[in-house]
This record gives sequence, structure tokens and C-alpha cells, in this order.
Amino acid sequence: MTGLPHPDRLSLAQLVAQMIVVRASGYLFDHQIQYPDWEPNQATLRGLIQDFGVGGVILLGGSAAELAYRCQELQSWAPIPLLIAADIEEGVGQRFVGATQFPPLGALGSIAQKDLERAKELATAMGAATAQEAIALGLNWILGPVVDVNNNPQNPVINVRAFSDRPEIVAQLAMAFIAGTRPYPVLTAAKHFPGHGDTQTDSHLELPVLSHPRDRLEKLEWPPFAAAIAADVDAVMTAHLLLPALDKDVPATLSEPILTEILRQELGFEKLIVTDALVMGAIAHRYGVNEAPLLALEAGADILLMPGDPAGAIAAIVAAVETGRVSRERIQRSVERIFQAKERVFVQSPPVSLRDLHQPAAVQTAQAITQESMVQIPLEPVASGLNCIIVDNILNCPFLNRQAPALQIPPKLGHTKELIIDQRMPSPAIAHLPTPPTLIQIFSRGNPFRGSAGLNVTAREVISHYLKNRAIAGLIVYGSPYIFQELSAQLSPESPCLFSYSQDAAAQEEIFSFMSSMSFIK
Amino acid sequence: MTGLPHPDRLSLAQLVAQMIVVRASGYLFDHQIQYPDWEPNQATLRGLIQDFGVGGVILLGGSAAELAYRCQELQSWAPIPLLIAADIEEGVGQRFVGATQFPPLGALGSIAQKDLERAKELATAMGAATAQEAIALGLNWILGPVVDVNNNPQNPVINVRAFSDRPEIVAQLAMAFIAGTRPYPVLTAAKHFPGHGDTQTDSHLELPVLSHPRDRLEKLEWPPFAAAIAADVDAVMTAHLLLPALDKDVPATLSEPILTEILRQELGFEKLIVTDALVMGAIAHRYGVNEAPLLALEAGADILLMPGDPAGAIAAIVAAVETGRVSRERIQRSVERIFQAKERVFVQSPPVSLRDLHQPAAVQTAQAITQESMVQIPLEPVASGLNCIIVDNILNCPFLNRQAPALQIPPKLGHTKELIIDQRMPSPAIAHLPTPPTLIQIFSRGNPFRGSAGLNVTAREVISHYLKNRAIAGLIVYGSPYIFQELSAQLSPESPCLFSYSQDAAAQEEIFSFMSSMSFIK
Repeated sequence: MTGLPHPDRLSLAQLVAQMIVVRASGYLFDHQIQYPDWEPNQATLRGLIQDFGVGGVILLGGSAAELAYRCQELQSWAPIPLLIAADIEEGVGQRFVGATQFPPLGALGSIAQKDLERAKELATAMGAATAQEAIALGLNWILGPVVDVNNNPQNPVINVRAFSDRPEIVAQLAMAFIAGTRPYPVLTAAKHFPGHGDTQTDSHLELPVLSHPRDRLEKLEWPPFAAAIAADVDAVMTAHLLLPALDKDVPATLSEPILTEILRQELGFEKLIVTDALVMGAIAHRYGVNEAPLLALEAGADILLMPGDPAGAIAAIVAAVETGRVSRERIQRSVERIFQAKERVFVQSPPVSLRDLHQPAAVQTAQAITQESMVQIPLEPVASGLNCIIVDNILNCPFLNRQAPALQIPPKLGHTKELIIDQRMPSPAIAHLPTPPTLIQIFSRGNPFRGSAGLNVTAREVISHYLKNRAIAGLIVYGSPYIFQELSAQLSPESPCLFSYSQDAAAQEEIFSFMSSMSFIK
Repeated sequence: MTGLPHPDRLSLAQLVAQMIVVRASGYLFDHQIQYPDWEPNQATLRGLIQDFGVGGVILLGGSAAELAYRCQELQSWAPIPLLIAADIEEGVGQRFVGATQFPPLGALGSIAQKDLERAKELATAMGAATAQEAIALGLNWILGPVVDVNNNPQNPVINVRAFSDRPEIVAQLAMAFIAGTRPYPVLTAAKHFPGHGDTQTDSHLELPVLSHPRDRLEKLEWPPFAAAIAADVDAVMTAHLLLPALDKDVPATLSEPILTEILRQELGFEKLIVTDALVMGAIAHRYGVNEAPLLALEAGADILLMPGDPAGAIAAIVAAVETGRVSRERIQRSVERIFQAKERVFVQSPPVSLRDLHQPAAVQTAQAITQESMVQIPLEPVASGLNCIIVDNILNCPFLNRQAPALQIPPKLGHTKELIIDQRMPSPAIAHLPTPPTLIQIFSRGNPFRGSAGLNVTAREVISHYLKNRAIAGLIVYGSPYIFQELSAQLSPESPCLFSYSQDAAAQEEIFSFMSSMSFIK
């Protein structure tokens, strides 16, 4: 069963629409939409699926149960079964509450430095768990693994999302992850070709330029893509980067030399080339909203992700075929690839249920990765201490709630007062924060749209304040190993310092796990 | 169809179990449980339902989609269909994200002061919408309306949850609300008998004592209960209060004079008497965890809500029947009432869907109540102002996220800097907060477990700081009319002051609605 028509029976507009993947909110109701500029309301979305026949949807936000309902509803509208994708690089729980959340891939890379075979084993288990949980919700496309080589600690957008700064480790772990997903009817996507690991600019905001010569790319950036292709990855996602050594005119997403000559011909990739989100600043601000998808298509992309105006993009491409700028055969070739991918995911498979989420195998794998990539110089108990938590934006902290171990456990070590600081805290007030023995807990990592990889100014001021007052009784960093290295170097060597790649409740509990063996804890 | 067995065919333990309603998390997974002391894990819950055959479940937390899944799953485990209850006094959206949230009942009371008929109309529409949305999720018991008369502004637990401080308004609006629910297969519960409106102690924490003479209760507190009974309310919930004029020994929940002599015999109530949560401090701390349910049963209760140890409570009651302390007929009489209620809700009814939630009729009713109970002396634009938001606990603010109008709109009025303050802010830092022209937005209302009704100490310090520096450009209070009255009296009469009973995004948008007509806004 697939329910796919023969491409010959589709109109030109229907063929083109299959190449489009639109963005939608994972929440059920219009009043819950979190990104109104990008996420259409229910009526518009239904029109895009039912009337235009777009080929897929990328979802963000909502609980696992909401997403399961949503996926069913979207498929019920679709004349041709939809690809339903999500950016679940760190497990389904990274985006959809209730499912299993894994540490960022950098945690696996740090395990690989000590024991590559162990890291590969965990990567395969993580791939399998992510695939199982994806299909339990109705997702059929994991937009991962990231196979960029993070050779720049200042990289604001890749950072710990990458496995490693060493190409051979990235290649090995990417292959292992993909192998874990292969038994399941779910697609993967290696990203971001031709390599996004060495940028200092966030392509979500503007266009980064990489001046590397081609031989460096061949040696450093491309082996992981070659490995992913050898491992049968279903798609490769393009990067919004300008690489003058390969194409001095347009970014990779829009570049025929990069997508067709290098990726298709030289690397021999025959499956789906998918653009990164076409609404991202690097593309959207420079090329017309409807010209960009057309340029990406001409460059060699099969799937046009999140065009700013899906209906406009379809019309522009149809017009380009009608005027002879693009051939119908070119469109048809992409749709054939898309249908091949759809045939792989729309197989008769055993029924799945929300109860397949957060099963012991998945949870134990996540826990093992968290544990084995952790740094722990345990804390000592104090009297009348302060628990000072530093975050970027307190309104965007899914890892912090009243039950969070980062709040619940420190009082047992004597840090009974509590402070939560984000970028809103004014400098004059920082200078007057109380300075008893203080446990500093920082939640910070490079994230898309954040703009930079390091600590924000407020966080730096707070830390200076406590350093100056010699009040730091312990430091915990959840997220960035680079921030951890920088800050722990400023403390005396015997100071309690703890680091976790993950930020979630399970990781917080793991960070304090030394406590269970301590007799002074009741 | 009801699928209910004849009570004679149940064992004693099965009969007793039908009287128990256990608490459970609305989230799907054990790792999401928010109240681990009260909410059993999945395996224990399943055992209580499947093996013990408890009569019902009260749910808290989760999204609407999660709850719908949860209700189906719970019913699938139950040998006898379950009552599934929730504290959705302010609409289903009060507890389950995605559904419609209404203002607290106090908003309807304030409309009634101006136009009783209009308020009744809105109360009926709110009752109907709450009932429709409840059944769309699989809930069949609304634990409302609150019919307490809030004759004490310091009441920490009722407060704006009550319609009014005037018994006749409470009675009228309660009848109107119940009438709205009656066409639907869903139960209601008038609470908290014999009247919780004049307490200064939070019964969630300890036992309040009310020294009123009986004639005051008859005149002030009981007319709304009589009205609710006349309106065919399905249940009356008891209060954990000691009223020496009625029973000098035990609180109302455990008092035969109050439940049986007054409520059953004098007020003639023949349907379900349900206790308030038996784990609440006022009861749990004073009577044995398994003795309390037995005492409530002896006093006249039919449904024992949230006993601390459901299996223990069942065993204790079975033992009491076996030793002759309680008669089997007494149990059977309660089960007959429970089955009558179940027959009313387990009718063949048209299929419902999550898409029945947040429909225009419900949304418009909520909006009308918000609008018509609002106070608005509009703000003027400023230059380089501050938007200072004050909350109790930033980790418990479902009404604040990055999209919240309280954050999005003030910058358009010149309040471009932002500050969010909760009780964690240390005093020395407060004294050094910057004081440009400042819009103060306070989210505060009496809530169970909060312990008091008024502003917390930190909030008072912050407000003093801005008052002293003459920096308050405007004041908005979301929640408590008492706090609003107190603070607005401290500002000059022409100062912009705004008040809303509701705290949610819709209310925030409504508060700033004057802006749409202002030419200086782009």
C-alpha cells in the first residue's frame, strides 16, 4: 500500500506542490501558534494540503499527544500521503514533550574520544529510539543527523549540535545513527551540505561566507557526507552559506555547481536533496520570496522547505516551466525521488501507540549518553548558601519548572536561597546581589536564532560579581562545553565543577547523582 | 447503554471502591508527573482502576490532546465506566491547554452588579461551553460552580473564584451556570458546603475555624446552595472547615450534623455528596489517612475524593462494614446515587472531537466576560520606558510566554526595556532597579496553596521603589480586584490604571485594546 498515483497522472501544479514542504505549528489550535510569521492558521494550512496538494509538512511545538493528533489530521486532508518532518536531532523529546530527549550529538562525540565503539553503539541505539518514537507520533522524516564538523567553538548555530570537531568521528557516528534508523519506515537527512561547521554567523539571521579552499572542504567537511550517503541516508539538506571557492555568486542552497555537480555527480548522491528553510534570513532577505525556491530547484533541490509563500512558490515554478525556464522532466525527476521516499515510509507496519514513547530502552540510552559525557567534581555542602541559576530567557526554559532537580536538590546541599537570572536583569541590580556561598548553575548552549555561541553579557556580569566576591561554591554548566572550559579555568583547580551536555530534568538529576552516596543527605 | 452492573452483583470491596475518586496526572508519562506525592504512576493507577475498580479519577495537568488520550485509556481499563472529574471552574482551558479559558467567576459577579440579566446570560453560555468542551475531552464531571460567598477580601483560597460577596448574586449566577450545563451529559458540583467564603486560612494547608452563628450561615452562605440544588446540581462538595455552631468536634467534611442533618435532611439534597480532597492539610494532618475517608462516609458523603491511600481506604471501610461499624446498605445507597449519576453521563451521544474545543461561541463568551468586567484608564506613550512585570513565581506562569501581549505590546507604547520580577528577587537588588517611566504589570490573585490573597512582600517592595521614585507611568493588575483597589488608590486619580480578572493572553490583548484606535501606533 502506498496510495501514490503515477506522476504522469498529476498536473504540473500538483507535481510542483509535491516538492514543497510547509511549516506548521504542532499545537492544535490557532490561538496557540508560537511563530505567527511562519505558521499558517488551520484554514490556510488545510488549503495548502487539500487544495494545493503540498508534499509535506514540517512541525514544531506541542506535546507528543498533540502531535499524534495533528499528524493524523494532516494526513486525513492530504490527497497524496504527506512527508511529515521535524527537527528532532536530539530525539523526539527535543521538540515534543513526553517523548525521549537525548543529549546534543556533541555528547556522543566526547564519548567517542574515549571509546569510539561505545559511542557508535549508543549512536545506533539513539537512532533506533528516535525512529521508533517518530513513527509512534506519525512523523516519517527525522531532519538529522547533523554531519557538520564543528571546527569552530564560536559557531553560533551548529556547536554542540555536531558530533565532533573531527571528521572521522562525525562520519563514524553519523553512519551508526543512520544504521539505527534504517529498520524503521522513517527517513533521515544529513545536514548541512557542503558543511556548516566553521561559521561564525548565524545563517538564520544573515548569510555566512566561508573562504576555505576546496581541498579543505574535501578533506574536512565532506567525508561525513560521503559516509552518510554510503550508509543510505535518505536526504541531504543544503546550507545557506556562500563558499566562493565553489560558487562565487550564490549560496549553496541555490548553487548548481554545489548541489548538482558536487553532491549529485561527484559524491554520487541519488536520493532527496532538501533545502534548509527558505524563509531563513540568509536566503529570504537576499532573493525574492518566490524566486528563491525556483533558484533552489534549478540548482538541483528536490524538496523546497518552508518557502515564505508556498502558493506563490508553486505558481512561480509552474510559470517557469510554462516559459521554458525549467523542464517538466526536471520536476518529474524530483517527484519520482519524493515518491520513492514516500514508498519507503508508507508501508504496512504494525500499529503504533503513544505508549511506545519513553520506553526503557530509549530512556536508558539517553541516560547512558548523559552519564558517560559528564564532568563531575562533586559539590560540598554549605551553610546558608545561594542557588543562582543563569539562563538566556526565563520565558524559554522548558528544562526548568518547579519540579526541576536543579531547583529541588541544591537546598539539600545548603543552597537554600534561590535566584533565577536572565538577560533582563539590570546591571545596577547585579552589583547588589547577595553573595553567600553560591552554587552557579548556567544553562547555555549555541542555538539557532540566538546569534552567538557564548555566554551573554548579563551572565558574564553575574559571574564576575561572584568571582570578585569569592563566593562561588560550585559551578555547573548545562549545555556548552566551551563555556564550561572557559569558566572552570577561572576557578581554583579543586573547585567543584560539573558539566552536562544535556539540560533536561534527567540530566540535572544525573549531575547531582553523587549525592545519593553522601551520608549527610537525609 | 451504560454498562453498569446491578449493585447487588458487586462484592463489598467493589461497592466501596466505586465511592473512591483517585487523583491522577493528566500527562501521559510518569516522568511528567508534577505532584509525585499525590499522583500515582501509570502502573499503580492502572491497578487502582482495573483491579480495585475505583469509581472515578480527578485529573490535573496536560494539554487537551493529552487529556483526551488519557481519558480514553483510563476508561479502557475500567470494569465499570469511570467518573472523570476536573477542577475546571474557569473553563476547561483553566487546566488543559488548548481549550477555552474563562475569567474567574468574580468577573461575572462584577458584571452582575451593573446588569444581572446580562451576567446570567453569560454564566449560562459559560456553563454550556464548559460542558461541551469537557465532554470533547472525555471529562464527565465539572467540579464547579463555586457557590461560596466571598465576603472576605483576604480569603486566600476562594477570593475571585467566587461569583460575588452578595448571596443573591451568587445564587442567581450559579443557577444560570448550572442551567447552561444541563443539556449535556456532564455532572456539576456546587462547592464548598456549608460555605468557604469567609475564611482567612487556606484549608489546603491547615484547618480554618469559622465562628459564625447558624443564622448567619442560613442567611448568607446557604441560599446559593439551595439555589444550586433547585437548579438540579448533581453534587455538592464539602468544605474542610470547623464550624463550632454546627459541629464543635469535626470539620464539615466529617460531620454528620452538617452533611446528613443539614444538607440531606434540611436542604433536601438527594444527589451526590462529595468530599473535597481528603489529602488536603486540614483533614490529612488531623485524622488518620484511612480513618478520614471512613469518617466522611459515616458523616454522609457518597464520594471520597483523593484519599491519601485509596487501597487502604477501601480496606478500612470494608473492615468497618465487617465489624458492623457501617452497614452494607449505607454503602449500597451511595453506590446507587453514583450509578444514577453515571447513567446520566454514559448516554449514547453524538461523537465529539478535539476540534469541538475553542469554538467561536466559547471564545466570544470568554471575551465578553473579560471585556465587560475590565477597568481601563488607558496608558499614554512614553520615551525609553520600562515594562516591569511582577509575578509570584516565574516558574508557574502559564499566562506568560514570548508571545504574551503583556510583553509584545508595551514596547509599542515606549516601554522598550523589560523586567520580570518574582519572589526570588533580593531586596538589595530591588533598591537598585532602574526607574525610567515604568509600566507595572502585576499578575496576582488568591489561589489555593498560595497561603494568602494579597501581594507578596517582594512585590510590595518593588512597588514602593517605583512609587518613591515617582516612576509609575501606568499600572495593570491581572487577577485580584482587591490588589487593584489598594494600589490604584496610591496613584494620582488621572494615572493610567487597568484591571482584568483574567490573566491569560486573550485578557492581556483586551487590556491593550484601546491602542488599536490610537494614531501614534504603527
